[in-house]
Amino acid sequence: MKINSERLRKRMDAINSIAVTEENGMMRLALSDADKVARDYFVKWMEDEGLIVRIDDLGNIYGTYIGKNPDASPICIGSHMDTQANGGKYDGLYGVMAGLEAICSIKDAGLEPESSLTVINWTNEEGARFVPPMLASGVIAGQFAKEWVYQIEDRDGLRFEDELARIGYKGNINNRIKEAKAYLEPHIEQGPVLDSEGYEIGIVTGALGITGLDVKVLGEGNHAGTTPMKHRKDALMASAEAMLQIRENTLKFGEPAVITNGIISVERPSKNVIPSIVEFSVDMRYHTDEGLNLLEDQTCEIIKRVCKEYGVDVQIARYWKAAPVDFNPKIVECIKEKAMQLGYKSKEIISGAGHDAVFINSIFPTGMIFIPSVKGMSHCPEEESKWEDILHGTGLAAETLMALDKIEI
Amino acid sequence: MKINSERLRKRMDAINSIAVTEENGMMRLALSDADKVARDYFVKWMEDEGLIVRIDDLGNIYGTYIGKNPDASPICIGSHMDTQANGGKYDGLYGVMAGLEAICSIKDAGLEPESSLTVINWTNEEGARFVPPMLASGVIAGQFAKEWVYQIEDRDGLRFEDELARIGYKGNINNRIKEAKAYLEPHIEQGPVLDSEGYEIGIVTGALGITGLDVKVLGEGNHAGTTPMKHRKDALMASAEAMLQIRENTLKFGEPAVITNGIISVERPSKNVIPSIVEFSVDMRYHTDEGLNLLEDQTCEIIKRVCKEYGVDVQIARYWKAAPVDFNPKIVECIKEKAMQLGYKSKEIISGAGHDAVFINSIFPTGMIFIPSVKGMSHCPEEESKWEDILHGTGLAAETLMALDKIEI
Repeated sequence: MKINSERLRKRMDAINSIAVTEENGMMRLALSDADKVARDYFVKWMEDEGLIVRIDDLGNIYGTYIGKNPDASPICIGSHMDTQANGGKYDGLYGVMAGLEAICSIKDAGLEPESSLTVINWTNEEGARFVPPMLASGVIAGQFAKEWVYQIEDRDGLRFEDELARIGYKGNINNRIKEAKAYLEPHIEQGPVLDSEGYEIGIVTGALGITGLDVKVLGEGNHAGTTPMKHRKDALMASAEAMLQIRENTLKFGEPAVITNGIISVERPSKNVIPSIVEFSVDMRYHTDEGLNLLEDQTCEIIKRVCKEYGVDVQIARYWKAAPVDFNPKIVECIKEKAMQLGYKSKEIISGAGHDAVFINSIFPTGMIFIPSVKGMSHCPEEESKWEDILHGTGLAAETLMALDKIEI
Repeated sequence: MKINSERLRKRMDAINSIAVTEENGMMRLALSDADKVARDYFVKWMEDEGLIVRIDDLGNIYGTYIGKNPDASPICIGSHMDTQANGGKYDGLYGVMAGLEAICSIKDAGLEPESSLTVINWTNEEGARFVPPMLASGVIAGQFAKEWVYQIEDRDGLRFEDELARIGYKGNINNRIKEAKAYLEPHIEQGPVLDSEGYEIGIVTGALGITGLDVKVLGEGNHAGTTPMKHRKDALMASAEAMLQIRENTLKFGEPAVITNGIISVERPSKNVIPSIVEFSVDMRYHTDEGLNLLEDQTCEIIKRVCKEYGVDVQIARYWKAAPVDFNPKIVECIKEKAMQLGYKSKEIISGAGHDAVFINSIFPTGMIFIPSVKGMSHCPEEESKWEDILHGTGLAAETLMALDKIEI
């Protein structure tokens, strides 16, 4: 199927020109003025293409190309247009624009699918303005209550609901998507695997589960000069040893296991005082429930053993738990076949990040297509994907939509 | 020599009742109202005892018991009465009160030394209000310029000179001590060695030199979920490994070497982002120049090697360097002999902390006497020394003053 490269590029460029930071980053925080301008472009383009546009009570925008059987459940495709503060040009926007382009290309080719095709822009995927992320897809998937989402405030105390109304995108609850034959989300990988290994397409089979721990190590704060090494109960040394050992254990655990200590802090830090209290975070991810639980158990055991060896106390609290996700096998298979037919060098991959697709997977058959991120950079101005990869992913999305229309799911 | 235990206790209790925090800590910051009250008590007690009191332009207070030969260089003893915020009852105050008590006991015993005996209270030893520490002894020793010290401001913007005048202790430059046969400083150990090994007295042979490094590790900040372990350049893991290896090396280096990482921070920390920039401090101490330089070289080499192994860059900057100090061998020997004669279980020890004596050592023959700190606690309300140790140290100081009067130094 022929993709209109110029149209796609113009649309992406238009939205990526709205709010550019000094460092050439994107600043389309959810429900901001910049988000409103992007939404207005998106709605206008869809109306110009003859799609039926509707907006629900969470600000999610749907544009539908009516199928031959309007009563059949639609096949959906989309992502989000909001960005991180000083974020990149592709995270989120690519999936919405590729979705729109895929539907336009199908229309241009004169193809008439049985099911309607609907492109979706989800509100506040990033969580950069209103925390947590994936708020609107979370409500649709039954993870969050609408009333709770409505009252969430940004750092300036502005409410989600008020900002939604202010930019004119507080639509009708009846416009929410209620059923779908399939949901497809094209996205940049946001990691280095496809780029570094020379793949053009990632067939996303699922998403890693996440367990997050807060660790608090309690030693003894003493004078850096007068306390001999053997008399110390150094909370930072115990933490350093524990972090290295749980990392080593995760390496042995094997891919796709990852572990990250993103935060570490010393209470009342001073250059000439032995740290008494140190807190650090542990973010562990794995693709199976059993494996993730085992990794958590091993990690906690190692931390406790190391702290005992260093003569310090430790408290461990779990701050986050998200189960691993498997995408719909038929959709995964369909993407894989189409990628092969199109001759794209593809690889099965598990998403390490959260996406609207992860929530939507719990209510509709879902799949994702990844395109490579140059050097794996994301959430920053350096975020980049090659244009040919953008086109390949869009073409594959269009072919997959038509293929999904033809199969039972 | 008989020490007046009751008098000593009453005086220490009086000063330790001036400004007590909720946690039962001391709050006599230098040149504060509380410091003024303590100074006023000290001056009055000295005047009552018939000592000649004088105050210099840095607020240092001297009280002299005139010797048989008033033209001979005086033998001095002292420390400081200022405390850390929420500090302890013994750090500093003990040396001043023991010095006064030693002189009073000599006087009470009817002893008439050749040299005059002078007890000294140095201004702002702690550096808790005006940074850096040991400001006034530093000027006397030629380490700091008076004009520079005068203009130093506390956190509220109040100048050292103005506060000195405000509390009425801006004296005359002619009152500075110009020569001394010896300077003796009794002090609590502020470390756990004497207490844990069952010694009553520490014969301080010198003070550790200090080298301070600021280390900045520069890795790559990436997504905690989408970046496989093998693709990471984790600045925190490199830092943890480096800190553990330089600690291991210091343990091999042997006592009295100590190394402390008091500060660590991640730039823009986030639980789900791999740390890109981590900074940590290194405080190394050793008792010889050559050894300290070698330890610094080894430490820098290890940090650089580890960072190379982790694929991250590193910058190392030295923020502090203080040479090791050897106290006067005759004074050390004199203290040792007297401690033996008095039957005190004593041990040679090197001070890991800074003291006025460390600066004064560069201009006058100097020595220090340590008494045990219970569990090594200091700079906190839990700071404690047993009363019998306080008396032993005071008696030893008095005997040492008289012994120093009799020898050539």
